[in-house]
Amino acid sequence: MSVELDGNILVTGTNRGIGLDLVKMLAERTGQRSHIYACCREPEGSRAEALKELVTQYPGKITLIKLDVSNEDSVVSAVQVVSAHVGAAGLNLLINNAAVNMPERPALMSATGKQDMMLSYEINVAGPFLISKMCLPLLQKAAEIRSSDDGDNMSCRRSAIINISTLFSSIEKCPETFPMAQMVPYRTSKAALNMLTCCQAEDFKTHNILVAGLHPGWVRTDMGGEIAPLSTEESVRGMLNVMSSLSNKDSGFLLDWEGNRIPW
Amino acid sequence: MSVELDGNILVTGTNRGIGLDLVKMLAERTGQRSHIYACCREPEGSRAEALKELVTQYPGKITLIKLDVSNEDSVVSAVQVVSAHVGAAGLNLLINNAAVNMPERPALMSATGKQDMMLSYEINVAGPFLISKMCLPLLQKAAEIRSSDDGDNMSCRRSAIINISTLFSSIEKCPETFPMAQMVPYRTSKAALNMLTCCQAEDFKTHNILVAGLHPGWVRTDMGGEIAPLSTEESVRGMLNVMSSLSNKDSGFLLDWEGNRIPW
Repeated sequence: MSVELDGNILVTGTNRGIGLDLVKMLAERTGQRSHIYACCREPEGSRAEALKELVTQYPGKITLIKLDVSNEDSVVSAVQVVSAHVGAAGLNLLINNAAVNMPERPALMSATGKQDMMLSYEINVAGPFLISKMCLPLLQKAAEIRSSDDGDNMSCRRSAIINISTLFSSIEKCPETFPMAQMVPYRTSKAALNMLTCCQAEDFKTHNILVAGLHPGWVRTDMGGEIAPLSTEESVRGMLNVMSSLSNKDSGFLLDWEGNRIPW
Repeated sequence: MSVELDGNILVTGTNRGIGLDLVKMLAERTGQRSHIYACCREPEGSRAEALKELVTQYPGKITLIKLDVSNEDSVVSAVQVVSAHVGAAGLNLLINNAAVNMPERPALMSATGKQDMMLSYEINVAGPFLISKMCLPLLQKAAEIRSSDDGDNMSCRRSAIINISTLFSSIEKCPETFPMAQMVPYRTSKAALNMLTCCQAEDFKTHNILVAGLHPGWVRTDMGGEIAPLSTEESVRGMLNVMSSLSNKDSGFLLDWEGNRIPW
């Protein structure tokens, strides 16, 4: 049985695409006790206009946080701000959504350089690694205060990390998907992120913190392109439904926006 | 049917451990037409003494090459030197063996920093990515000149990349292996390396270049520690037997030193 998400929720990479719609739908669907910490690199910049409109539209529900996941000092500062806000309630849900896909299309391996590899890993893996590590005390607090409602000891309402991954992270599916788009820095970093998901799930289960990966589907965003079959709204609605229903059995696994498990 | 390896073979990280024994056993087992390019960071340094002894022991069989896989200029220079040596024969086998495991034991996630993540990825993934990319023309040359002996069009005698991976790269096995050793930077980088293996196999199959990952087993090296069950000699003998027998069906997969496939 799925229970609506609520509590303190942090989302990274929220100025556009899936991150922006995650904030919007969370603001719509969560109750009075819920607060959303919407992180992006430049909350004061022109690229955060849509996000700032959401803050106005849902008064008292969303706090904008300046965060560059590739900058360690920025991660420390952002988590300090969130920590001061949430206080003893802690953080219930951390959604690591910020990511890059380099180089530009067609993103052939032959046109890929070392910097594409390093920057992709820094943002897509080291970023989620750091912010999860820094948020751990806040997630532990939340897990200590709340129990899960459905008998299982882990849930996204209690305390959880969701790492947004991709079908392209699946090594098993690589022979099928590689001809569609090579994207080696993206694929290697997201396969590494899946390993991080599994390690975090193992390490944090003693604290009753659930950790899972989610594939949003192929979505019409700047990253997904115009011919993608899913709208961000459809993808985000699906992912929030999946998050609401996650329990012990899902921790350490990768699921798609419809709840189907994806092989490693 | 397995055929002994020969031709031009490049191995990275050869001043100690598995890399050193790979050079030794390749020098012993390969025929007159074979030449081994043994790469290490400081071929003139005191840490390369054992490697230099092998050069003396097998005259004309081994060339030492200065290579730091984390330095792009160094990779370019090393491949230029190898290219001049091999000439029209090209390179038959590239063994990406150089790797690091950081931080030091017990390598807990809680004691792991961003630099451990980034440096591990740089050496364990960006290194093999770059050197493979730079060696591609040499591997293509070799693949054009030689056919495989056993009917299949791909083999390590013709043209191949072997990425040395680890059981700890397996996300599926992570719940089993995580309690033994957390090693998150090592695990995430090696999971990414597995993805690279699969991408390279897909991309290079049109050139008849085989790409596979190999797990050396748990070996008594500086990295494996003293209580490991396998000697480097046993591991390397096993891996060379496996390499000798690899064919089309193995390209894009991860096998252990006994030839068993490891799940992603």
